[in-house]
Amino acid sequence: MSLNELETPVPVVDLAKVDANLKRMQDYCDTHGIKLWPHIKTHKIVEMAKRQLALGAEGLVCQKLTEAEVMLDAGCENILISYPMIGMEKARRLAAIAGKAKFTVAADSICAVDTLREAAEMSGAEIGVLVEFDSGMGRTGVVTPKEAYELAEMISDTDGLRFAGLMTYPSNENSVAFLKEVKPLLDAAGFGLPVFSGGGTPKAFHQHELGIVDQLRVGTYIYHDRNTVAAGAASLEDCALHVLATVISTPKPGHFVLDCGTKTLTSDPVAAPNKGHGLLVDYPEAVIERLTEEHGMVTLDPDLPAPRIGEKVLILPNHVCPVSNLHDQVAVRQRDGSFEFWDVSARGCTR
Amino acid sequence: MSLNELETPVPVVDLAKVDANLKRMQDYCDTHGIKLWPHIKTHKIVEMAKRQLALGAEGLVCQKLTEAEVMLDAGCENILISYPMIGMEKARRLAAIAGKAKFTVAADSICAVDTLREAAEMSGAEIGVLVEFDSGMGRTGVVTPKEAYELAEMISDTDGLRFAGLMTYPSNENSVAFLKEVKPLLDAAGFGLPVFSGGGTPKAFHQHELGIVDQLRVGTYIYHDRNTVAAGAASLEDCALHVLATVISTPKPGHFVLDCGTKTLTSDPVAAPNKGHGLLVDYPEAVIERLTEEHGMVTLDPDLPAPRIGEKVLILPNHVCPVSNLHDQVAVRQRDGSFEFWDVSARGCTR
Repeated sequence: MSLNELETPVPVVDLAKVDANLKRMQDYCDTHGIKLWPHIKTHKIVEMAKRQLALGAEGLVCQKLTEAEVMLDAGCENILISYPMIGMEKARRLAAIAGKAKFTVAADSICAVDTLREAAEMSGAEIGVLVEFDSGMGRTGVVTPKEAYELAEMISDTDGLRFAGLMTYPSNENSVAFLKEVKPLLDAAGFGLPVFSGGGTPKAFHQHELGIVDQLRVGTYIYHDRNTVAAGAASLEDCALHVLATVISTPKPGHFVLDCGTKTLTSDPVAAPNKGHGLLVDYPEAVIERLTEEHGMVTLDPDLPAPRIGEKVLILPNHVCPVSNLHDQVAVRQRDGSFEFWDVSARGCTR
Repeated sequence: MSLNELETPVPVVDLAKVDANLKRMQDYCDTHGIKLWPHIKTHKIVEMAKRQLALGAEGLVCQKLTEAEVMLDAGCENILISYPMIGMEKARRLAAIAGKAKFTVAADSICAVDTLREAAEMSGAEIGVLVEFDSGMGRTGVVTPKEAYELAEMISDTDGLRFAGLMTYPSNENSVAFLKEVKPLLDAAGFGLPVFSGGGTPKAFHQHELGIVDQLRVGTYIYHDRNTVAAGAASLEDCALHVLATVISTPKPGHFVLDCGTKTLTSDPVAAPNKGHGLLVDYPEAVIERLTEEHGMVTLDPDLPAPRIGEKVLILPNHVCPVSNLHDQVAVRQRDGSFEFWDVSARGCTR
């Protein structure tokens, strides 16, 4: 089956580019003595996780427990859930798998540490805990060094839990400043700092400059997208996932409609000067102005060559991770040019 | 299982409200002699489609062929695919099911009519064709009455195809003006206008005022959402689907974080003065300011009562249809207060 024979809309992945992206990041980490922890949220595919581990990743990062349940199939011995667990349902769910790999979980509150304590008690397995702090994202994470220290103390005092270090996203200059304040507190108490876990594909190749990052959590680097290209972390040629779509209507000059909308591309915006809901690879001047669920409305200067109705076009998504989440399978271009459909097994794992 | 025992994040549906919403729309259509054609895109659930048919819907509307393949299981004899089919893959796929129900498909181009001709030829089944025109949405649909007439002529001249009438979305005053121009052309050629198919939940209860609508295609009315409430088509009390989420972090006063982001709520905006990514039912002053994939960042005046960490909260989505598309199952509250999980079988059907 060739590209043009694929029924649209469909995400297509170039495996040679995937492998090059994986190798580039692993080489970067190896060069700088950083442990690579790929975040599976971008691909959600067991086979991709296996490739990341085979190249030398120390472990896998999952955002949710249900993703971790799927990724156990990759044969991973080290799993980090970079998200606070809150409540008994999560404790029970974590306890059920805690003995199947070495688990580390992020926490930013007493309530989250309590949940992990319950899981450790129920399972009998030790759970590592990374204290998450906020380095400017304004999301989860404690905001003061004192809170980070107090959680480290609580974790150290809890049977079944191990203080694994500090975690933030993204790791940046603010992280360095935070660390400078909290490290003396941790050292004085004898906890030390086993690991500093940083992350973020956009600035991934500058992480060694911070001088603090032991572990690098990155997800988007496997495929890249318009946002990581805009951030300078990749070139358009590095991008490994595109959506193949068909022109289904050409209502008037300068306008055409694609068979992909928010159900295929999401409504996530791009943080780049070139606007729109994705980049048409062969028609870079075209702008995907508007999406409804199944329609992509494109404008293009009527004097420029435009695709004809029925033509299939490749689109680079603004943000690739949620695109993976919308599709049960992706068409993966093998080295011999043929396509295989791979299951996105951790799709929809929000719990 | 009670609401508070459900693991989050999870969409919860109130079946009593669903039934009331379905009945209200069916009653409206019956009162005004309009045939109701529920669009399954909002719920994507076979059981919900059966309820719509049992109440008197004439047929079901699907946006994509793959949705229609699923909805055949609802035992529907009349299916409208309100989307142009382009290309041989679609013709083959449509041909495979064309004999299993009475199919009508929208078309807005010669290429789309050609695809339907191929499908009719391959299957031997007659396919009805509605000519789609643009009533201001700027999406698919021919833009001039002359084009609509020419497609009607082409359809009438094609073996295996039947000119079924005109279709637009949404049906509005522009539609009336368009119809006034095209109707004399159709009448003069002897085609007439078998059906005028209109649609749109926001203005659904005003469709009889247009005086032209034979068929009403509506989807969102089954659940409603912030957008249809803002449009005046429903009250907050009518809304039948909410996302149940947990407060997982309270990093600083006036801020809390929910365990739902774009993977649960989508990044679709709301067309209402009250901004944010969804409405917290019990904390209406709170604003879901920002979403990442798994995090919802909420701000709330620190002087107002706020949910504590671990508390479960109900969120009314901005746009409910793509929320259904993100989840394999929804938790449906039965009349006795218990919850059953129903499969969203047509989730992810983009092709």
